[in-house]
Amino acid sequence: MVVVRNGALIFNEVPTGYPEPGKTTIFDDSRTIDLNNVPLNGSILVKVLMLSVDPYMRARMREPGAKTYAIPFTLGEPITGRSIGLVLRSEHEAFAPGDHITGPYSKFEEYTIPENPLLYNKIRREPGLEWPVYIGAAGMPGKSAYFAWKAYANAKKGETVFVTGGAGPVGTMVIQLAKSDGMKVIASAGSDEKVRECKDMGADVAFNYKTTSTEEMLEKEGPLNVYWDNVGGSVLDAALAATTPHARVISCGMIAEYNAPHEGTRLKNLWAIFGRSLHIHGFLVYDLSTPELEKEFYDVVPKKLASGEWKHREDITRGLENAGQAILDVQRGINFGKKVVVVSEE
Amino acid sequence: MVVVRNGALIFNEVPTGYPEPGKTTIFDDSRTIDLNNVPLNGSILVKVLMLSVDPYMRARMREPGAKTYAIPFTLGEPITGRSIGLVLRSEHEAFAPGDHITGPYSKFEEYTIPENPLLYNKIRREPGLEWPVYIGAAGMPGKSAYFAWKAYANAKKGETVFVTGGAGPVGTMVIQLAKSDGMKVIASAGSDEKVRECKDMGADVAFNYKTTSTEEMLEKEGPLNVYWDNVGGSVLDAALAATTPHARVISCGMIAEYNAPHEGTRLKNLWAIFGRSLHIHGFLVYDLSTPELEKEFYDVVPKKLASGEWKHREDITRGLENAGQAILDVQRGINFGKKVVVVSEE
Repeated sequence: MVVVRNGALIFNEVPTGYPEPGKTTIFDDSRTIDLNNVPLNGSILVKVLMLSVDPYMRARMREPGAKTYAIPFTLGEPITGRSIGLVLRSEHEAFAPGDHITGPYSKFEEYTIPENPLLYNKIRREPGLEWPVYIGAAGMPGKSAYFAWKAYANAKKGETVFVTGGAGPVGTMVIQLAKSDGMKVIASAGSDEKVRECKDMGADVAFNYKTTSTEEMLEKEGPLNVYWDNVGGSVLDAALAATTPHARVISCGMIAEYNAPHEGTRLKNLWAIFGRSLHIHGFLVYDLSTPELEKEFYDVVPKKLASGEWKHREDITRGLENAGQAILDVQRGINFGKKVVVVSEE
Repeated sequence: MVVVRNGALIFNEVPTGYPEPGKTTIFDDSRTIDLNNVPLNGSILVKVLMLSVDPYMRARMREPGAKTYAIPFTLGEPITGRSIGLVLRSEHEAFAPGDHITGPYSKFEEYTIPENPLLYNKIRREPGLEWPVYIGAAGMPGKSAYFAWKAYANAKKGETVFVTGGAGPVGTMVIQLAKSDGMKVIASAGSDEKVRECKDMGADVAFNYKTTSTEEMLEKEGPLNVYWDNVGGSVLDAALAATTPHARVISCGMIAEYNAPHEGTRLKNLWAIFGRSLHIHGFLVYDLSTPELEKEFYDVVPKKLASGEWKHREDITRGLENAGQAILDVQRGINFGKKVVVVSEE
């Protein structure tokens, strides 16, 4: 009998503003698990190694029934998110001890037994690429950028794209995809350090939106053939004003909206939608996923990342007990690179 | 020498709110023209029969240089718009006296000599269809509905569409196109008379947005697979909230925005763009025009209108001296059917 702690991050309270660690979520360190004898009922026992902390999690912190796009977390239960784990025991033919797996709805606990193991996929590392990268540039954020860029950017050499959240895990990939397609890239971010990151990723122009007017910068460096929107709000309005006729807007998320959903945003440039014949495409990454695209992604992207041709950055939080703070940091934009909670090194 | 009056509607002043006849525009009845001797310089002399009054004209009533999608009117000159005219004299090989022609930028004057006759096309009437219909359902508004519906609605039998401005010249065509495709049609309009019109055009559900909550109606009758937006503003926000995943929004115009452009609109449901993977397409009708589509339109639509299979309605103002009032009525939504100024019967 090997009884060990099985700490978990519990969804404790629906937040009204930013999610507060110790209030919105509570780390429960009183739970235990018997690794040798816990019944699996045909499933697998997984040691959780990496957990992803993402902006969209804020939308899941709500009362059941309130309308939004993401499945709500359950009060009193661990929150869930994308993970990488190590299979310790298996009663399922698809998995064997020693397999590494990734899945979208892992409980935030140190050891977990998935209800449906078929939501998980086995995953192998490219030599030279660490597991946290598979939560970031080689994982869901990388796929978000890659799939939607291929589907909707209609990129043409010499055109101009504006990317918000340019130093984030999606933004950095978009910058690199756009440069691969020969575009001029304008990127914005929320600190001078992040602005340098945008430039390191290849952005031709990068600016700190907290100290520089987005309107003025787009006036000077635009107009925009493509706008990749990670933030929504008034920045979307500024980008609409700066579009060319027939521009494409790719809507990946709106972090400016998540923590103040009842206020809304005043937009003055909606006329550009019809007046400039814009095409605005929203997406959720799993909607765009096809077996062919998944294969292409894993064939192309990890190699480019491992070789250094494409760059990536992770922002590591160690220990599940610190995940609540990591969630708040991501909502506030304090993270620098893809936020990954390293629950265990192996 | 046949000298006659050549009255014109002059753009006199940039309006701040609604365009006022006698202030924003002034009818100048002091101008004359010598029909036999006026020099044509290779062009044609046209007797103007019909002029179109459209919502988008408000966007043209501005200072040069202010940013928007439409070419501004010139202060002190006649405003311009789509027309049907009769050629009286011709020095251009493409036209002969007696031809009927239509063009997009006719001066609002009783007789006109186009700077570029090649912007005009010859036009023939379907037996049983009067000229004003060629300003409406068989003209630009009809093409707007037809071209964009074919391009972007991705209509599927049994799906639901919401059409605002349902009794207008574009809206009535959209209702009939959607019913042809087997969809459930929800339409809104601004008077009970217009609501009846929407139902006459085939709408399954129609309501007066001034007396009925759009949110509640869409909650009850939605969700929406397609939203055809003629108004923008808070109605767009309500429609976003009511969309299904992968819904299409076709943005044809935003009359709610035209007369108060600096206030903007507070939107609370922008999250639906990415959260429901929406596709929003704006358009200007001439962007979608191709020779094939133009031919298809004239092959299909006038016959359906002449036979009564599809319905149409025009709202006639007689005399160019009343065109300023017609413009205001359209901005206020007082017109019932396509507003046409009949300058002369022939």
